[in-house]
Amino acid sequence: MHNFAIALHGGAGTISPDTMTPEKYTAYTQGLKKALDIGYELLAARASSLDAVEAAVKSLEDCPLFNAGKGAVFNNAGKHEMDAAIMFGLDKTAGAVCGISIARNPVQAARAVMERTQHVLLSGAGANAFAREQNLPCEHDDYFYNQFRFEQWQESLAEGKVQLDHSEKKMGTVGAVALDCMGNLSAATSTGGMTNKKYGRVGDSPLIGAGTWADNKTCAISCTGHGELFIRSVVAYDIACLMEYKGLSLQEACDKVVMEKLVAIGGEGGLVAIDAAGNIQMPFNSSGMYRAMRTSNGKEEIAIYGSDEKVV
Amino acid sequence: MHNFAIALHGGAGTISPDTMTPEKYTAYTQGLKKALDIGYELLAARASSLDAVEAAVKSLEDCPLFNAGKGAVFNNAGKHEMDAAIMFGLDKTAGAVCGISIARNPVQAARAVMERTQHVLLSGAGANAFAREQNLPCEHDDYFYNQFRFEQWQESLAEGKVQLDHSEKKMGTVGAVALDCMGNLSAATSTGGMTNKKYGRVGDSPLIGAGTWADNKTCAISCTGHGELFIRSVVAYDIACLMEYKGLSLQEACDKVVMEKLVAIGGEGGLVAIDAAGNIQMPFNSSGMYRAMRTSNGKEEIAIYGSDEKVV
Repeated sequence: MHNFAIALHGGAGTISPDTMTPEKYTAYTQGLKKALDIGYELLAARASSLDAVEAAVKSLEDCPLFNAGKGAVFNNAGKHEMDAAIMFGLDKTAGAVCGISIARNPVQAARAVMERTQHVLLSGAGANAFAREQNLPCEHDDYFYNQFRFEQWQESLAEGKVQLDHSEKKMGTVGAVALDCMGNLSAATSTGGMTNKKYGRVGDSPLIGAGTWADNKTCAISCTGHGELFIRSVVAYDIACLMEYKGLSLQEACDKVVMEKLVAIGGEGGLVAIDAAGNIQMPFNSSGMYRAMRTSNGKEEIAIYGSDEKVV
Repeated sequence: MHNFAIALHGGAGTISPDTMTPEKYTAYTQGLKKALDIGYELLAARASSLDAVEAAVKSLEDCPLFNAGKGAVFNNAGKHEMDAAIMFGLDKTAGAVCGISIARNPVQAARAVMERTQHVLLSGAGANAFAREQNLPCEHDDYFYNQFRFEQWQESLAEGKVQLDHSEKKMGTVGAVALDCMGNLSAATSTGGMTNKKYGRVGDSPLIGAGTWADNKTCAISCTGHGELFIRSVVAYDIACLMEYKGLSLQEACDKVVMEKLVAIGGEGGLVAIDAAGNIQMPFNSSGMYRAMRTSNGKEEIAIYGSDEKVV
């Protein structure tokens, strides 16, 4: 039996230790641990990596602490527009949605696009209609209502801030990558986007090659960060190309892209990555990234800052 | 003064010589030549490649023969949902719209996203609101009405065909790439998508790295073809990576991706590409691709099939 492993993130950015209470730290790490355990246990039961990343991301979407699904931020109109993608490394099939507002779990809608249509990306009202037709669990606006997110939005509105301010409260994404016991890689990403975003803005999360990528030949990647710069850098596929065409290791490719190329253009953020051997990388150039990983070889880690004591 | 050049396409696919009358052939090649001349003359007047590709794509959007702008196909609801992207190779800035329905020239909306926002991709109703706020030329549904496209749609509806049938009438895109006398590369792509498409389906055209790419270090690319397979192959950026990381020439990289990798997965279509030296490639694995190119070194070509006599 092939070894297996999973890694996930709950967003990256300017996560200030000053505003982090022990209670919040515990809540975040518990949210990460719950998703990690769900994904890991599926892998241990010989489930596919696709099932594992979907289940882990669903768990993060269901947790109001993270900006995806139930915890999605408010857009400028006081609504929730969510994006998600999923990709299977065996045959590079992929599905994604952008600007979906009614799916309880956007990652589930992305998987339905992948498995039940011949398309890759469905958007907006069309994506909502698809979710309804497929009988995916749908929710009204009040499901996504969250006092904390509402106050964030009110504050952004009052400050008249453009959507681009990357303070802690403005960005966030969740994602997972996994290797299963059949040797197949998968990746999934989900986000509520930026607080107070306008004009149907779409970031990198639902874009195959930018925020999400999986190919058994190289790696599976899920990104989080300044979406526009991640799109223009085709971050996830760039790492795969550095491995395939230049012979870099996963770690070398991740360091090159996250710590050099993105830093050079001010592209704040990070990603989780796994290769076909089960090696995991979780690089970030921001002050923190909510992250967790566990391998069948006994490695486990849950962390937020670069140098915080590992929870596990 | 640096040499300069432009190449453009008006879509690829199963373009049957049997249904091509001399009149139609002339009309298509005249549409291509008009766009080519507009772009070329801008370059000759020392305009930037960004201006040249935008103007060439606008000209193709304004021509009802091509599936973009005025000639955009009908979706399942009898509406027009258009996608476009533009990218500048000097600094890899980019802008794109998907599911826009009121902009006379979606490529112009894409450029406004690039130059007047901090975003890369705006979608649906939000993209429409943005176009209106920016005072871009907007049109009502009747502007996009076209008897031929309407009959195509009625036929698709009657046949109950899913959106995936890639017959001549179901696909189409326009695009341009250029090198200007300052040595800067640009690319732009625009499409009405697939006839009878549902659910806000988005193809590769507006996705940076998939259907559109420009980087002075490597090349500028605009794709046309089976969008889903082009997305999953990150076609445009793959060619750039094969050049940068593997040292392939533009021709070798284009052949590898279009004639080998895409063929292996049934990804029908083609692309126009230009490198920093002004070399142009216009590969396609379908029976035809509407295409044209002209360089300051005196090369000019307008063609539809692989072996038709070149018009110029």
